[in-house]
Amino acid sequence: MNPDSVQGWLCIAGLGPGDPQLVTPEVTSAIDAATDIVGYIPYVARIAPRPGLTLHASDNRVEMDRARAALQMASSGKQVVIVSSGDPGVFAMASAVFEALVGRPDWQALDIRVLPGITAMLAAAARAGAPLGHDFCAINLSDNLKPAALIEARVRAAAGADFAMAFYNPRSASRPHTFGRVLEVLRETCGPDRLITFARAVSTAEEKLLTVCLAEATPEMADMRTVVIVGNSATRRVGRFVYTPRSAL
Amino acid sequence: MNPDSVQGWLCIAGLGPGDPQLVTPEVTSAIDAATDIVGYIPYVARIAPRPGLTLHASDNRVEMDRARAALQMASSGKQVVIVSSGDPGVFAMASAVFEALVGRPDWQALDIRVLPGITAMLAAAARAGAPLGHDFCAINLSDNLKPAALIEARVRAAAGADFAMAFYNPRSASRPHTFGRVLEVLRETCGPDRLITFARAVSTAEEKLLTVCLAEATPEMADMRTVVIVGNSATRRVGRFVYTPRSAL
Repeated sequence: MNPDSVQGWLCIAGLGPGDPQLVTPEVTSAIDAATDIVGYIPYVARIAPRPGLTLHASDNRVEMDRARAALQMASSGKQVVIVSSGDPGVFAMASAVFEALVGRPDWQALDIRVLPGITAMLAAAARAGAPLGHDFCAINLSDNLKPAALIEARVRAAAGADFAMAFYNPRSASRPHTFGRVLEVLRETCGPDRLITFARAVSTAEEKLLTVCLAEATPEMADMRTVVIVGNSATRRVGRFVYTPRSAL
Repeated sequence: MNPDSVQGWLCIAGLGPGDPQLVTPEVTSAIDAATDIVGYIPYVARIAPRPGLTLHASDNRVEMDRARAALQMASSGKQVVIVSSGDPGVFAMASAVFEALVGRPDWQALDIRVLPGITAMLAAAARAGAPLGHDFCAINLSDNLKPAALIEARVRAAAGADFAMAFYNPRSASRPHTFGRVLEVLRETCGPDRLITFARAVSTAEEKLLTVCLAEATPEMADMRTVVIVGNSATRRVGRFVYTPRSAL
């Protein structure tokens, strides 16, 4: 084949929370058509190797390098899929790719598509019942990319307006104490009886689900594989489920 | 077969925004195994008829009746799927089903599962770029189930804490003016230059995408098939895309 005739493209694809049954056919088709898969090591590990497919796994916190490398490959005629866990547009690789396009009209002209996936908070909510059944917020608790004061201000604003909340990246080895502070703010603003769900590694063999009230919640209930969902003032239990009523009337 | 040996179950499944390529294999398997499909008319219309499958389509605003009917069928040994557009846990049927379980321990004991789907705001965000790439809120603008004052309070809280926002059900024939009021509140709190994306019927043949600044936005840009996404203060355009940077530092 004449290399000049090869049309490069880049898809930023969401693999969902872990179970292959939660990967959309659209994403599966893109992976099947790709020449190159790019992503964080544990996400690339979810792609089956095959002849003609090159896997490029890289470490965490090199998102901009990874985005530029993928754009460079697409620019040279490769069919490239950047894989993210969950949905690529929610605290994942899509924003990094668009940031990398700034000042690069050549890359902006490429065939670039974002392929949505099942994001962690919705997989977690489904497993618990329907805790996000009314207005809600999604907040990344990692302070790598924003000041801790902004995280606290957003949690207070969300609690004040009685949103349900989903927290991504609640806790890591490098910042074991920030989530404890968020729990304090929540107890202060939402009271001790508010329901909180810790959903770890949903849809994988390591799945673990725990719902308690804020008075009982401890920082150790979360790690980096956990999504935390806090109900609004009407969230309640029924049988083994947790749900937020549709109505606020 | 002895009817006593039949095990009933109920899945509340998300069909995604419209394109069959965005339906998860998990949902497809549940539909393939079902004896009965229950849902709002246009969603049930997306299910292919086959021998042994009964389709129960009902009108809008009868969510509780629909939930109870589905639970009754599962209770009598049927394999039932309630279909929602998007994700069943986001402004859809999952909460209604759990509400219907209150005071019914017999129904609480049933095999009930929520199967997540690609919710409209994430399909819309993917098409536009990555406007929800940082902390965001999801707000249902319908005032069927909550006071208009609460909607306005939540929009103000979200704007004040610089969340991006996704609005479901922004506008309908029965309340043509409420979305105009929300646009006024947004212009007041976010200023005229803030980017707003109108994403209509994403992934269907009627898909239409429009991004303007708040100064140019009009209520007529939205209808009931539109999801509206408002960026945060850092949201910007690059080429044909809209994205929100990952960092707030």
